[in-house]
Amino acid sequence: MLVNHKRLLVEWGHCDPARIVFYPQYLAWFDECTSALFAAAGLPIHTLFKSHGVVGVPLVDVKVRFLIPSTFGDELLAESTVAEFRRSSFVVRHRFFKASALAVEGFETRVWTAHDPGDPERLKSRPLPAGVIERLTGVGRDRASDGDE
Amino acid sequence: MLVNHKRLLVEWGHCDPARIVFYPQYLAWFDECTSALFAAAGLPIHTLFKSHGVVGVPLVDVKVRFLIPSTFGDELLAESTVAEFRRSSFVVRHRFFKASALAVEGFETRVWTAHDPGDPERLKSRPLPAGVIERLTGVGRDRASDGDE
Amino acid sequence: MLVNHKRLLVEWGHCDPARIVFYPQYLAWFDECTSALFAAAGLPIHTLFKSHGVVGVPLVDVKVRFLIPSTFGDELLAESTVAEFRRSSFVVRHRFFKASALAVEGFETRVWTAHDPGDPERLKSRPLPAGVIERLTGVGRDRASDGDE
Amino acid sequence: MLVNHKRLLVEWGHCDPARIVFYPQYLAWFDECTSALFAAAGLPIHTLFKSHGVVGVPLVDVKVRFLIPSTFGDELLAESTVAEFRRSSFVVRHRFFKASALAVEGFETRVWTAHDPGDPERLKSRPLPAGVIERLTGVGRDRASDGDE
Repeated sequence: MLVNHKRLLVEWGHCDPARIVFYPQYLAWFDECTSALFAAAGLPIHTLFKSHGVVGVPLVDVKVRFLIPSTFGDELLAESTVAEFRRSSFVVRHRFFKASALAVEGFETRVWTAHDPGDPERLKSRPLPAGVIERLTGVGRDRASDGDE
Repeated sequence: MLVNHKRLLVEWGHCDPARIVFYPQYLAWFDECTSALFAAAGLPIHTLFKSHGVVGVPLVDVKVRFLIPSTFGDELLAESTVAEFRRSSFVVRHRFFKASALAVEGFETRVWTAHDPGDPERLKSRPLPAGVIERLTGVGRDRASDGDE
Repeated sequence: MLVNHKRLLVEWGHCDPARIVFYPQYLAWFDECTSALFAAAGLPIHTLFKSHGVVGVPLVDVKVRFLIPSTFGDELLAESTVAEFRRSSFVVRHRFFKASALAVEGFETRVWTAHDPGDPERLKSRPLPAGVIERLTGVGRDRASDGDE
Repeated sequence: MLVNHKRLLVEWGHCDPARIVFYPQYLAWFDECTSALFAAAGLPIHTLFKSHGVVGVPLVDVKVRFLIPSTFGDELLAESTVAEFRRSSFVVRHRFFKASALAVEGFETRVWTAHDPGDPERLKSRPLPAGVIERLTGVGRDRASDGDE
């Protein structure tokens, strides 16, 4: 499975009066890490969505464990990968390391979502395209580096 | 001119390690206060935009003075009004009071913006409709309470 | 058990390009709802923390199910209560309703946390005070309304 | 004067339903860019504040012009420098470029702030240390690279 790494810097505005990262910020980082994982798979979301008629990959479920708090100036190393594929959804696992210790672990369940053809105001799940799965597993990676984007 | 008031409660997550409101939050509140001003004028933005083919009222300029810091648990009273109308833009003035002291004052210059008919990916300013100006000045207020929404 | 309700208005800035609430915002609301639950129990956090020498009630675990997306202008009714007390932690359950349908359900596990007496830079869990548990179960509610705050 | 550059990537969660960056995000970036400017001057804020007994550099004034909107996937190049020093405050100018076009320009007036010795709950401005000014003008830069941190 394709694994992507991303460095995160804890900024002043990410922290709360207890001087640690305010926890919703971790979910904003999960979202950024999922975008980076797609980009690393050769599937940059901002063009992918248009080309596939998709409006986004909204969450239906998220689970997070916070093991070590982080503070202003800390650097985290994020490691993201798809932990499971289902018909029209997939689970992304994010692990944030501080030094080499696991600080945060989260699982996002996301749905491949398009506008409902019958009612453009409504959103509807759609089967995950085989090409997208292939890329996220890392199979399509060589093809990507062959430049056939 | 129509003046709208809105109570704001400073939450834990709005504050930074100095234990005061992290300043970008004030601009998020300005945006909420502008929405509330439009709603008070009988022009709820979420339906207004659709009915006028407008995608939003993006900012071109903002100026803010921060006079008194606020902290978790503080209550602010926001007072919002249009300070000036131009052809396709308008200036909203927000004043946030803590007890009766002026804590923050800001001026947002916003543009009435639609998709460019020639290129739906681009945004384009449009003249502010007379009916919108009328309502925001408070002239249309009685009509609103007559129930002809 | 004490149950607190809070109305939430979905603002423009809470929503993402898919025109639905960006999911980390739900966790910011959970935090606001937990503060409101404590306040309803007669335990306003901004004074409680000082009086108990506590720096916060950081999360160690959060689980959320997103059932129905919400969009700009929607009103949600939040219902919050403690689902479980442990020695130095507690689980807060939040349910957000849109009209009468369950839109989001989340469980926060929070720890009663103080500065470590031996090292003020470090944080340390502490047993949840009996008086705090009493108030959050609703037992202390009448006493609160008797005005002995 | 020392000038610092920083690359900013527009993430999904930075954007609103008009599909452009929600404007308070620009101020969060200004704050990150000011931290980066201090770090580039050899004055990392998270240690600087402690060593100087400072709680932060809160804003008293901010002015921003938004010239070109940005959207998910865009890359911005931020250029930050101190535009003016006063007794206990300083003005940081941020320019964000998209391709080579100026997209956003902002001026933050920040105050060097410590706890009031007479009342630790209150904040008080303090004269900007000469060593801090020297570093931010770039004079101290060589000294920094000489390794006498």
